[in-house]
Amino acid sequence: MRVLIIGAAGYLGWETKDYLEKQGHKVFGIDNFSKQRILEGSGIHWFRGKRVHVDWVSSLSKQVEVFEPDCVIHYGEQCSAPFSMISEVNGIGTINGNLNSTLDLIYQVKAQNPDIHIIKLGTMGEYGTPNIDIEEGWIDISHNGRTDRMLYPKKPHSIYHLSKVFDSDALAFACRVWGLRVTDLNQGFVYGIGDAEVKTNFYYDAIFGTVLNRFVAQSVVGHPLTVYGKGGQTRGCLNIRDTVRCVELAMLNPANRGEFRVMNQFVDQVSVNQVADLVFSTAKQMGLNPKIAHIDNPRDEAEDHYYNAKNTKLLDLGLKPHYLTEDSIAEMIEYLLPKKGEIVTSQILPTVRWK
Amino acid sequence: MRVLIIGAAGYLGWETKDYLEKQGHKVFGIDNFSKQRILEGSGIHWFRGKRVHVDWVSSLSKQVEVFEPDCVIHYGEQCSAPFSMISEVNGIGTINGNLNSTLDLIYQVKAQNPDIHIIKLGTMGEYGTPNIDIEEGWIDISHNGRTDRMLYPKKPHSIYHLSKVFDSDALAFACRVWGLRVTDLNQGFVYGIGDAEVKTNFYYDAIFGTVLNRFVAQSVVGHPLTVYGKGGQTRGCLNIRDTVRCVELAMLNPANRGEFRVMNQFVDQVSVNQVADLVFSTAKQMGLNPKIAHIDNPRDEAEDHYYNAKNTKLLDLGLKPHYLTEDSIAEMIEYLLPKKGEIVTSQILPTVRWK
Repeated sequence: MRVLIIGAAGYLGWETKDYLEKQGHKVFGIDNFSKQRILEGSGIHWFRGKRVHVDWVSSLSKQVEVFEPDCVIHYGEQCSAPFSMISEVNGIGTINGNLNSTLDLIYQVKAQNPDIHIIKLGTMGEYGTPNIDIEEGWIDISHNGRTDRMLYPKKPHSIYHLSKVFDSDALAFACRVWGLRVTDLNQGFVYGIGDAEVKTNFYYDAIFGTVLNRFVAQSVVGHPLTVYGKGGQTRGCLNIRDTVRCVELAMLNPANRGEFRVMNQFVDQVSVNQVADLVFSTAKQMGLNPKIAHIDNPRDEAEDHYYNAKNTKLLDLGLKPHYLTEDSIAEMIEYLLPKKGEIVTSQILPTVRWK
Repeated sequence: MRVLIIGAAGYLGWETKDYLEKQGHKVFGIDNFSKQRILEGSGIHWFRGKRVHVDWVSSLSKQVEVFEPDCVIHYGEQCSAPFSMISEVNGIGTINGNLNSTLDLIYQVKAQNPDIHIIKLGTMGEYGTPNIDIEEGWIDISHNGRTDRMLYPKKPHSIYHLSKVFDSDALAFACRVWGLRVTDLNQGFVYGIGDAEVKTNFYYDAIFGTVLNRFVAQSVVGHPLTVYGKGGQTRGCLNIRDTVRCVELAMLNPANRGEFRVMNQFVDQVSVNQVADLVFSTAKQMGLNPKIAHIDNPRDEAEDHYYNAKNTKLLDLGLKPHYLTEDSIAEMIEYLLPKKGEIVTSQILPTVRWK
């Protein structure tokens, strides 16, 4: 298939491009490198993969017209909740940047070829922590003796997550009114280093590093694993190897015209405490000296809550999960050990508070 | 109370300012006059009220700081569904303009005084036409043996309505995470000319004229009342006199800190056919020669659907409705008859198609 990836220079975009090319797809990757500018401007250190064959995106309209993709995978958004909560400028910038990238894509596909399948990366964080089971995007509601299938109500807890809810609503609208075909993949947090020869970026700071990647870096430098609050926060997660496989499954099994298809993209459901314990035990076995520290939670989130999210759609399409094990963590520790001296410990502790 | 009205030069804003001043409130009205620029740029004719005492808004931040309002009433948004569907530029402009005006207000109130009560005008059109009863913003969902109170899922059918859903989600977020106090008033379509001595604007064109105001203008010039499609489309509606009273009731009974309160603001629930029939019979009795014509529906909407929307909260606060009657229509016809020669018939037929 002909695949256009927006945000191909990022953690997930790069790995996806590499994987899909290996599967024989014709991939065209574009990026506006805004995250790189943010990182360089803020002085944050990350492990940077070498970047080749990713084109600067000037006009999405032109890229869609020239490349004629069968599907567009949209990773091109500001992806950090803490970053969006730093200031008004960051919040309004995150919402405008993310929402307008999605609106631009919708209008280009509508104008040029409504058959193009849009695959949009969303997040499980859009749902928040409701007191009922989390379904995959839609829920059948029975009310006063009648029923309807409705979009699952969202409870985002950061401006970043709110921006992703806007994206989802815009895409659902585009399917409902204009008949586009969209798959919205609500991802859990992603961990791992992937299989690309030229490795993808790896972030471990408090702004852009996801929790497991951050814990692994902490275990390597002997910093306590920083659990926010009680650590009962439960989320879905997945290995980056499954991210790229899920995206390919969505690609090979496109949504129908007019269908806003939502799939929850994670394979394990774990609490922050469970993640910390697993990193702790793995690091211990590898001769490191890990510690766990509970610190004040900078976020606004429940630390002890009901959580039961469905994730059968991608399994039904054939996903063979890479589950979270000590082996998957050991692999990451081995990757980081030789780079230990480069890790900047001062950027691990949270600096952004929600309130 | 000290009240800041954003969008005070508009159809509703002007009437609200006039009414609240008569009730003894201290009102400060601001506007960026963007609608006036749109109208003048497009050559659309409307009956323009004389405008005095409305200040140009340059910086909302400064206005909030200097005026120190107890509450802010936010009418300052692009309000036409057809306008938002004209082109990509109109759609993206409507979303960005509307959402950013709300985000700006949220951030200013959060930074300056989170006790300020935000009253936001939403629309019943955010709900669309679900197959279950429409509740007032929230719904208790029972699912797999558990329950939660969730935001009512929305099904907007125009880019304008989508932009209002974004506003609602942003305001709900601001209450949930930052503890602001917000009342979201989901209005039905508004009709009438109000009680201000200096009359408010009156629109009857296919872009900005709401259905009843449009029908009345048509009956006055002898143009058939243009019912879109079958005319079974059912909506809530209210007299502009009730708009201003509802807003005052919300003001006098503010939401609590952290509460996102939603009230459905309409008093009658009618189909387009019922509205047409009522204008027809009233016009007939007044010696006019009305006709009704069903024309191709330019919109994407169900023309025959279940509709049962709740509206008890404002009644519980003490609203005494001005129901839709032949008298209320006769009053509008009397207002327009002397202006008959000025009505531009060519701008009555729809030009914007949803697909």
